[in-house]
Amino acid sequence: MSSAVPFRIEKDLLGTLEVPASAYYGIQTLRAVNNFRLSGVPLAHYPKLVIALAMVKQAAADANRQLGHLGEDKHVAISQACARLVRGECHDQFVVDVIQGGAGTSTNMNANEVIANLALEAMGHAKGEYGFLHPNNDVNMAQSTNDAYPTAIRLGLLLAHDALLASLDSLIQAFAAKGEKFAAVLKMGRTQLQDAVPMTLGQEFNAFANTLVEDLDRLKRLVPELLTEVNLGGTAIGTGINADPRYQKLAVERLATISGQPLKPAADLIEATSDMGAFVLLSGMLKRTAVKLSKICNDLRLLSSGPRTGLNEINLPPRQPGSSIMPGKVNPVIPEAVNQVAFEVIGNDLAVTLAAEAGQLQLNVMEPLIAYKMFDSIRLLQRAIDMLREHCVVGITANAEHCKALVEHSIGLVTALNPYIGYENATRIAKQALESGRGVLELVREEQLLDEKLLADILRPENMIAPRLVPLAG
Amino acid sequence: MSSAVPFRIEKDLLGTLEVPASAYYGIQTLRAVNNFRLSGVPLAHYPKLVIALAMVKQAAADANRQLGHLGEDKHVAISQACARLVRGECHDQFVVDVIQGGAGTSTNMNANEVIANLALEAMGHAKGEYGFLHPNNDVNMAQSTNDAYPTAIRLGLLLAHDALLASLDSLIQAFAAKGEKFAAVLKMGRTQLQDAVPMTLGQEFNAFANTLVEDLDRLKRLVPELLTEVNLGGTAIGTGINADPRYQKLAVERLATISGQPLKPAADLIEATSDMGAFVLLSGMLKRTAVKLSKICNDLRLLSSGPRTGLNEINLPPRQPGSSIMPGKVNPVIPEAVNQVAFEVIGNDLAVTLAAEAGQLQLNVMEPLIAYKMFDSIRLLQRAIDMLREHCVVGITANAEHCKALVEHSIGLVTALNPYIGYENATRIAKQALESGRGVLELVREEQLLDEKLLADILRPENMIAPRLVPLAG
Amino acid sequence: MSSAVPFRIEKDLLGTLEVPASAYYGIQTLRAVNNFRLSGVPLAHYPKLVIALAMVKQAAADANRQLGHLGEDKHVAISQACARLVRGECHDQFVVDVIQGGAGTSTNMNANEVIANLALEAMGHAKGEYGFLHPNNDVNMAQSTNDAYPTAIRLGLLLAHDALLASLDSLIQAFAAKGEKFAAVLKMGRTQLQDAVPMTLGQEFNAFANTLVEDLDRLKRLVPELLTEVNLGGTAIGTGINADPRYQKLAVERLATISGQPLKPAADLIEATSDMGAFVLLSGMLKRTAVKLSKICNDLRLLSSGPRTGLNEINLPPRQPGSSIMPGKVNPVIPEAVNQVAFEVIGNDLAVTLAAEAGQLQLNVMEPLIAYKMFDSIRLLQRAIDMLREHCVVGITANAEHCKALVEHSIGLVTALNPYIGYENATRIAKQALESGRGVLELVREEQLLDEKLLADILRPENMIAPRLVPLAG
Amino acid sequence: MSSAVPFRIEKDLLGTLEVPASAYYGIQTLRAVNNFRLSGVPLAHYPKLVIALAMVKQAAADANRQLGHLGEDKHVAISQACARLVRGECHDQFVVDVIQGGAGTSTNMNANEVIANLALEAMGHAKGEYGFLHPNNDVNMAQSTNDAYPTAIRLGLLLAHDALLASLDSLIQAFAAKGEKFAAVLKMGRTQLQDAVPMTLGQEFNAFANTLVEDLDRLKRLVPELLTEVNLGGTAIGTGINADPRYQKLAVERLATISGQPLKPAADLIEATSDMGAFVLLSGMLKRTAVKLSKICNDLRLLSSGPRTGLNEINLPPRQPGSSIMPGKVNPVIPEAVNQVAFEVIGNDLAVTLAAEAGQLQLNVMEPLIAYKMFDSIRLLQRAIDMLREHCVVGITANAEHCKALVEHSIGLVTALNPYIGYENATRIAKQALESGRGVLELVREEQLLDEKLLADILRPENMIAPRLVPLAG
Repeated sequence: MSSAVPFRIEKDLLGTLEVPASAYYGIQTLRAVNNFRLSGVPLAHYPKLVIALAMVKQAAADANRQLGHLGEDKHVAISQACARLVRGECHDQFVVDVIQGGAGTSTNMNANEVIANLALEAMGHAKGEYGFLHPNNDVNMAQSTNDAYPTAIRLGLLLAHDALLASLDSLIQAFAAKGEKFAAVLKMGRTQLQDAVPMTLGQEFNAFANTLVEDLDRLKRLVPELLTEVNLGGTAIGTGINADPRYQKLAVERLATISGQPLKPAADLIEATSDMGAFVLLSGMLKRTAVKLSKICNDLRLLSSGPRTGLNEINLPPRQPGSSIMPGKVNPVIPEAVNQVAFEVIGNDLAVTLAAEAGQLQLNVMEPLIAYKMFDSIRLLQRAIDMLREHCVVGITANAEHCKALVEHSIGLVTALNPYIGYENATRIAKQALESGRGVLELVREEQLLDEKLLADILRPENMIAPRLVPLAG
Repeated sequence: MSSAVPFRIEKDLLGTLEVPASAYYGIQTLRAVNNFRLSGVPLAHYPKLVIALAMVKQAAADANRQLGHLGEDKHVAISQACARLVRGECHDQFVVDVIQGGAGTSTNMNANEVIANLALEAMGHAKGEYGFLHPNNDVNMAQSTNDAYPTAIRLGLLLAHDALLASLDSLIQAFAAKGEKFAAVLKMGRTQLQDAVPMTLGQEFNAFANTLVEDLDRLKRLVPELLTEVNLGGTAIGTGINADPRYQKLAVERLATISGQPLKPAADLIEATSDMGAFVLLSGMLKRTAVKLSKICNDLRLLSSGPRTGLNEINLPPRQPGSSIMPGKVNPVIPEAVNQVAFEVIGNDLAVTLAAEAGQLQLNVMEPLIAYKMFDSIRLLQRAIDMLREHCVVGITANAEHCKALVEHSIGLVTALNPYIGYENATRIAKQALESGRGVLELVREEQLLDEKLLADILRPENMIAPRLVPLAG
Repeated sequence: MSSAVPFRIEKDLLGTLEVPASAYYGIQTLRAVNNFRLSGVPLAHYPKLVIALAMVKQAAADANRQLGHLGEDKHVAISQACARLVRGECHDQFVVDVIQGGAGTSTNMNANEVIANLALEAMGHAKGEYGFLHPNNDVNMAQSTNDAYPTAIRLGLLLAHDALLASLDSLIQAFAAKGEKFAAVLKMGRTQLQDAVPMTLGQEFNAFANTLVEDLDRLKRLVPELLTEVNLGGTAIGTGINADPRYQKLAVERLATISGQPLKPAADLIEATSDMGAFVLLSGMLKRTAVKLSKICNDLRLLSSGPRTGLNEINLPPRQPGSSIMPGKVNPVIPEAVNQVAFEVIGNDLAVTLAAEAGQLQLNVMEPLIAYKMFDSIRLLQRAIDMLREHCVVGITANAEHCKALVEHSIGLVTALNPYIGYENATRIAKQALESGRGVLELVREEQLLDEKLLADILRPENMIAPRLVPLAG
Repeated sequence: MSSAVPFRIEKDLLGTLEVPASAYYGIQTLRAVNNFRLSGVPLAHYPKLVIALAMVKQAAADANRQLGHLGEDKHVAISQACARLVRGECHDQFVVDVIQGGAGTSTNMNANEVIANLALEAMGHAKGEYGFLHPNNDVNMAQSTNDAYPTAIRLGLLLAHDALLASLDSLIQAFAAKGEKFAAVLKMGRTQLQDAVPMTLGQEFNAFANTLVEDLDRLKRLVPELLTEVNLGGTAIGTGINADPRYQKLAVERLATISGQPLKPAADLIEATSDMGAFVLLSGMLKRTAVKLSKICNDLRLLSSGPRTGLNEINLPPRQPGSSIMPGKVNPVIPEAVNQVAFEVIGNDLAVTLAAEAGQLQLNVMEPLIAYKMFDSIRLLQRAIDMLREHCVVGITANAEHCKALVEHSIGLVTALNPYIGYENATRIAKQALESGRGVLELVREEQLLDEKLLADILRPENMIAPRLVPLAG
């Protein structure tokens, strides 16, 4: 601490420290900052977590006030402080590293201290005059880190999750719009990267939309089930020791009201105190969305490969010059960035898994890492989804002529003719085409295997891209 | 192929091969066996997969029969062959390695060929006389590997999953029974491996039961949602090319009836053909169960550590001698094995994730690995759960006296006295106890801070392990 | 145990069991078989592990004989038994599941019991007459599972590793041969799947060879450093309690001689007893090889995509029919299988990591899983490498004309002309080509920007695929 | 861009943008900032990367100057600009997100633009007057992102790695000092969390030191082998197209001199352009160190568990109050934070692996994520190691009396007596002790199985913690 910075002295069980005079956080936050110089990422990097912490403190204060344990003056001041945090003020006071020991105690104390000092100023006292309103005794009243902190994480993720859903929905709309737009673009489907049978580019983009619809629906159903059960009121290990028997119900109800989220008390508070299962499954679900986005972006990069020596079926909008050494090169930078976000999310899922497995007895001390990675995955996905939509999907165009030419030139076309010219003819034509480099249709016409009218009928897109009643060999 | 083994000659597009005369599989299976000498684990290692393949073939045959594409004789013969496989016969004919290229074509052909040859014998023909009944034209009629194979995987997992649920339910009962049995065993709760506040051993074991109840409930709800949508009828890429328009509905209905599972057609068959999302999420859910089991087993190993230099709160039943060099040593071998199964399941989840991400365009060719790892995880978990229950949980006993002594000796007990003797006294007593090595109660009694009657009341288990109305500092 | 099977009675600390009369394993093996019904994969699945166990037992017996602790008759009999196992006999007696609790005690006892009973028979006694020669007292003399087992794993991996190196070397030769063969095949290089600048197909295949050469070299250097330090002699926790002070040196020297591997004693036996670092790093290295193979196979699948609607620069040899519904379709099944092996190896690496992290105090009880996954990864990689070479790489052919046509048709060609026609002309030509669909060379010729002689000179492969002295803008 | 901020107009192939007038970065950086709003972590978060980029640009400028392609004025100005960045100035100008598409083009252009504008100012021109000195033509001369960027990553990691080695060395010293200090503290060793045989606390701490020594040695040998081969000079795909044939040698030599690192050219530049193997293996090695640190911290937490209901063999220095609800509770917050860092590093390793596997053909476009995760892992580990040493290890004290009491009270002690009282007596005494709750020594004395002198001799620490010549049963 530079001697030039004005400070105040604060004290805790381990002694005293000089806290910067301007800081709303206090000695325990400062100890944590000194202890944990790790990622360099402060709690404030995730505003929804800070807001959720403030809401939890508000709910606890409301319950304590109603039960008569917290005086009116204190309640008013704490409420004003919490409101400021919820509005996004003073988040820069959440300075503890996102990676920290102590099972979240430092995060909880950072909240307690900032709220206490904001409240003290509102009451007309100086920061640090905890005799008038105390971070532990008043702001943290009836709480333990072990119930307040996991509750705040769940709530924060619920808040963050809404933005993810909105972004995902917009991306789905963008893919579906392209699906409609490309409905008439006939192209070859490919399995195992080998020419298969015809389809439309619209079907392909609709499949992108539909696979994400499944995830949107799943997230909508899964997340509330996973995150709305909170252990507030369990105190140290879930037995609720030293808490007022009426407190839990009141506090959780207040928190639900304040946050607008359908929160409810966990059924077994001892189980809920150490259990990280909800995070593991939600992270697994986010990983699934990441996997799907990665697959879609791989496809977009394949389909737009070229322009001359690749598939070149679609064009991605250019976003930045691709190369100084290669004139005119434009790269699929947006899908590439999405791939990397997906890999990060998959890596995060592993870190969450490891942390969840490391719980011991009545607590999981690795919860700060879990929180960090969950907030990171949700926000990264949300931003990647917005980026993909805005900077890529909405600007995609089709090379319809090239797509059509590939179909006509393809040997796979023979599959559509199979029921009409027979398997033997089909195989012979396919082989001949492959060896000669000539087209299947050209050969069929040459051999007059089908008249032009029937051929035209078979080759109409609507007939090639759906089941059709033709004789099957019995 | 040793010349001494009698064989028959079979032929496909690439030429001829000598197939062992006794084999029900055919040339394409043999090619796959020769191509893929990898894990050494044959398909038959997972009987539910073989049964599911037979059910799919049966359903397709039924639909084709009903639509008039498959003759009655063939239908009868195919049905007999499928029935035998469903009963568990001839599984040794499923010889292809579980790791294979070709997106499951070899598995599908292994099924087609075995069923064809079983059917041929039933019809009075020799194996290999495919002119009478053909693996592709008849058994695989109206199917592609790309729809029949994923459908069979889903169905096979549904079948395997029932056993997992039953085992999990039994384990829950076992933990709950111990929870009831240990309801009166007072012990110290521990957070961050440090002494915290009292609880009962019954609460601890109930928490084990309850955390698994959540997974049982989740699996029950999630698995049907994930696995009952099948893409049968989509043929090569989901467009249903060359399939009878009425086929899909019939075939899926038949499969639902045959299997007793509530199967239904996927909404977007093109999406469904390449999408592995259901497996990713189910694998993530299995990973969650693995994580919980691992945490529980870590706890069991901690709680039974000792007997003299560990926690020694519970005893696990001895299952095998622990050491030749150390007389009398018995180790927690069962929970240790569960931990390892959990790690395997987590590793499997990663392999599934990687394989799912590697899908390209209209297909995911990595599906054989996904199937392998999914079947592996489900069965390993089920067996580990049975092992844990039978060989460990049901035989656990409590060292109630030792648990009680630890509570009485603990400094954490002071937390329960806190509301009665005040925070200052509590802190002083705690410090004194830690420095002197004496007990908290001993010191409280010595100082006559509480009379015996009140002390006895406070220390009654039912009062220490739940919220209680005591004055909170306001 | 069916009553029809003849049996003998054996006894241990926990009581008696009926062991099948024909079995060379004994009661402790049988207990383990009953305890651990998990993967269904027995120890015998990995012959190198069985051989290594036999060598460790032989080395210990030799040392004990030399120190006078083991009589000559017993030594002779044990030696005969170990020799049989090393020759590959009786491996079917290693029946314990590869996943097991007890830190390998069951594997160690399986070896002790099989060797004891083989030795007893050689001495003219019946199986189970342990009074004449005892699995623990004699075969396991001066050993603990905690030193004998990790030593056997290291040795077994060293033995398995030799086969991997040989296979890798052969694959490298195969790629290098193709590199030479394709030296004159000019093609477009691609970055970000977009047309970049010319190269030869030979350069591409040489890069495959060279990237694997790096791994071959690395494995050759790394593996001996990682696996040759063994903790034999440390007994229970590395203090060597109850062992003859001369034993360690003798036993390790004998083991080195017997195995032909440069084994040496670990410097800190306490550290070595619980440390799994060597496995973590070796697994990480195997993962690297897996990643490279996967990338190469992805490239092979891309380069052979088509035949009409993909890149189609090379042809993979057909290995099996690709589809019944699509005539003539042949798929890249071999590279696809390699991809899946790579994913399995990456999943294994995670399981190894989790198991290594779970070590506690003086031991890592998760070592059986580590051994399982290490043996699995090494063998899978070795087999996948052989498969890739035999069934794919050696048969790859180039579509040289198509490659050349793609270069000539490519806009990326303009980069090679850049220094001669100037950046502005190059950019203009590139744009014109892209919009008109015409070729760069065609346009350059049309505008007479370069005379044919210079153009021919620039476009000679040797000039486009390496640095060349041309004026750079200063 | 707020209209209030003064700006300059810059132009590229895609059009024009308003760049803040005060910014040293230019239009391409700005495009990237607009494209990639993902992690919120700018390049500047990793100063070693910025410094390495500057060194690469300096080396290229030196080579180009020497070859006569870059004029003296420009060279001087570029050199001044690079020197400022190396000194740590202007790092706030590296604003692009660490996650980005384009294979690092945006990072490379961020460097090119900042250096160009710093150089322009040094030459007396305004920012953006690229006619005098151009980001691409001059700063990026003879380079492609595809060679300059991977070279900078390798160099940056080499620079960052030195700090990691120094920190690791200090931690080893701290553990070794405790090893010496605790040399006389006799305690029970534990295997499988069960009482095993005696050892000293000094041996335990020396094992911590020695297991990390192995990693220090390994890193020292491995990192230079992995990171010193650079592909500078390969330009777009490794063919060195359009580069002066003399350039590569000169540029790499200059870079080695400037950085003081033993850099050398990669043998196969085409291979080197897309290969990420070095990062995969280095990440695997960092993962190994993370695993070891996590295991050590798990042990520290176990050994310090209690104080009353855990092992309580050592005391960690208190770093912050542990609980408001539980008076006097102090938690092992430092090791807990190290565990979480380890999990993050393991998750990072997975992300690196996924990104490495995703390389295609001549490039790996996922390299920005690889760089991000590598820098993150190295720095996190280094900081966690420092934290562990400073805030935990140096302050650890032993509870020697309690350790000794546990040994004397332990049943495992019987193992040391085994060779003197015989296996039968030992087993009987062990059983009796376990059932009665009495001590082994007490019972041995009671039965007068050993005289006090011999007993004292056996129980001397130096005799129990090492091999000793005692009769072995033959």
